[in-house]
Amino acid sequence: MDTRIPALTALFPDSADAALIISETNRQYFTDFVSSLGYLLVARNGSYLFVDSRYEEAAKRQAKNCSVILFRKLADSLGDVLSQNNIKTVLLEGSAFTLNETAFIENILSKSGASAVKDDTLDKLIQKLRIIKTSSELEKMRKAQQITEDALKSTLRFIKEGVSERDIALELEFRMRKAGAQSVSFDLIVLAGAKTSMPHGVPDSTKIKNGDFLLFDIGATVDGYHSDMTRTYVFGKADSSMKRVYETVLQAQLNALEAVRDGCTCGDVDRAARSYIDQAGFEGLFGHSTGHGVGLEIHEAPSVSPNSSFVLRNGMVVTVEPGIYIPGKFGVRIEDMVVVSSDGCINLVSMPKKLTEL
Amino acid sequence: MDTRIPALTALFPDSADAALIISETNRQYFTDFVSSLGYLLVARNGSYLFVDSRYEEAAKRQAKNCSVILFRKLADSLGDVLSQNNIKTVLLEGSAFTLNETAFIENILSKSGASAVKDDTLDKLIQKLRIIKTSSELEKMRKAQQITEDALKSTLRFIKEGVSERDIALELEFRMRKAGAQSVSFDLIVLAGAKTSMPHGVPDSTKIKNGDFLLFDIGATVDGYHSDMTRTYVFGKADSSMKRVYETVLQAQLNALEAVRDGCTCGDVDRAARSYIDQAGFEGLFGHSTGHGVGLEIHEAPSVSPNSSFVLRNGMVVTVEPGIYIPGKFGVRIEDMVVVSSDGCINLVSMPKKLTEL
Repeated sequence: MDTRIPALTALFPDSADAALIISETNRQYFTDFVSSLGYLLVARNGSYLFVDSRYEEAAKRQAKNCSVILFRKLADSLGDVLSQNNIKTVLLEGSAFTLNETAFIENILSKSGASAVKDDTLDKLIQKLRIIKTSSELEKMRKAQQITEDALKSTLRFIKEGVSERDIALELEFRMRKAGAQSVSFDLIVLAGAKTSMPHGVPDSTKIKNGDFLLFDIGATVDGYHSDMTRTYVFGKADSSMKRVYETVLQAQLNALEAVRDGCTCGDVDRAARSYIDQAGFEGLFGHSTGHGVGLEIHEAPSVSPNSSFVLRNGMVVTVEPGIYIPGKFGVRIEDMVVVSSDGCINLVSMPKKLTEL
Repeated sequence: MDTRIPALTALFPDSADAALIISETNRQYFTDFVSSLGYLLVARNGSYLFVDSRYEEAAKRQAKNCSVILFRKLADSLGDVLSQNNIKTVLLEGSAFTLNETAFIENILSKSGASAVKDDTLDKLIQKLRIIKTSSELEKMRKAQQITEDALKSTLRFIKEGVSERDIALELEFRMRKAGAQSVSFDLIVLAGAKTSMPHGVPDSTKIKNGDFLLFDIGATVDGYHSDMTRTYVFGKADSSMKRVYETVLQAQLNALEAVRDGCTCGDVDRAARSYIDQAGFEGLFGHSTGHGVGLEIHEAPSVSPNSSFVLRNGMVVTVEPGIYIPGKFGVRIEDMVVVSSDGCINLVSMPKKLTEL
């Protein structure tokens, strides 16, 4: 934990004296402190978290790796620190600063003769750090995953013919939060029947009926860290076409998991799943990437997409989630969340994947 | 509804040919269409919503007041429209465009010889429109409020000694969503006992006990529109100090409601509540503003704050929510959401406010 800030300043370009971080996730990443508003100034010889009176007490108790400064007027408090430390060039988070916020900060900087770097330099440096997960981060993701699996198991028992997608999704969310999830990782996806063919479908009043595929793309958050898993079940009996699609997706997913290891590229992993699906006769029916990074955000680097030459390294966490979608008929997706390691991958998901008829 | 876009272009400065709108709320405001990604170009003689393949079908069916254009490369699709319409100066939403998104768009603009206006001009124009609510917008807010009140009434019956703040908040949210709320307006605030003295307290495992104040600051959303209400109850019997604080807040709130009408200032409304609280001997214990606008966002213009000279007009919606907070002891807040009208205000909240012992 405490190496995060030195690791960031070590990556600063020579021309930069400091970085100003305002996004909630990155402030949490560097200080372990969560608040709706705050300005984290990371300079080469010290870091400062500026908060307003709402957060002063909690920040002083909880924020790590920085001095906490209460501000009434940010211009005064930040201006003082800039002058005292002779900070002249400040990297901004290009992915987080809006134009209005940039104008506000540049006005403060200019008063002490400092200027802002307004591109994505800082975003890229922070991504380099965040992409490798520590054991304490993995612990939170495991906890989130455990809550997700427990909730799914208990919710599966509640499903009967005629229940709606929306009611199942709500029931799942309720159980996750009751079990201590801070929130859900994203609006839970629970789809039935023909709706499973839509990778971005939204649960509605569609009712479960016999012979449907039932797709769950779900996750929880714990201390800001996300989990992500997809399982597809059969409600009733699967016919032969359902079985064939399911087994094809499952084997493609197992092939992709097999490909994951330190040193392979994201393109290798994607190809392992996609080529199997294509060769099984489903070419063109797997219309999205094989996976994405997960952590403080549900979608973060790296993207496990076709032809990506990005090299996976120990400690990265990615999803592996191939699918086959037959418009108007049904879709199947199977997703695990895994940690890259030297001899393969460590699967953070333990929910069975064998074709299951509920 | 269909006058929104002409109303916006009528406000354009002479130098502007078009506006580019990317925030989810403003895209919804002008097109009635909700999506996670999209670019709405409002030009003087036509509007264009650029969406990717995920949203093409739904946008073509649902988006109003604009032509829907599918993009694969935004640079190509947007570039064509800019050239065809000879658009040279484009207002950006300064409150929504990040530095990275701005760089991406400026690159596209420059290829057709156009340039961006990167300040808050457009934000202010849109705010002028959004601040006045139409009857169809009010209808959605009424529906959200009805769901909130129904959920609170049924949840009050579930409360007994030993139940935690967190469990009550979860139960409330579950009931709202079960009743058709799209989501909650914000993380619901349910606080008990000494915790009620914190205006921004967060529900936790604190258990309800006899003699506690129980504060609910809650709301739901329907079709993107928010409701907002606070009620404070006594669990068990109120002692005389609790009664005195409660009656003071209630009278302050009634005074402020009385002050609301077309033509009064936000400062007038704030003063009506604050001066009563101060004169009753609680000066300094009402540490926040009296209210805020509500609509597609839970906090929007105007701010009902001390000394504000902003003039309230027919059709604006604001909250009126004075409180008294005695650190370490307890707090009381009572909040209604009202529509400004010529002869006073129309209260969107019908939940009783008389001191209630549960």
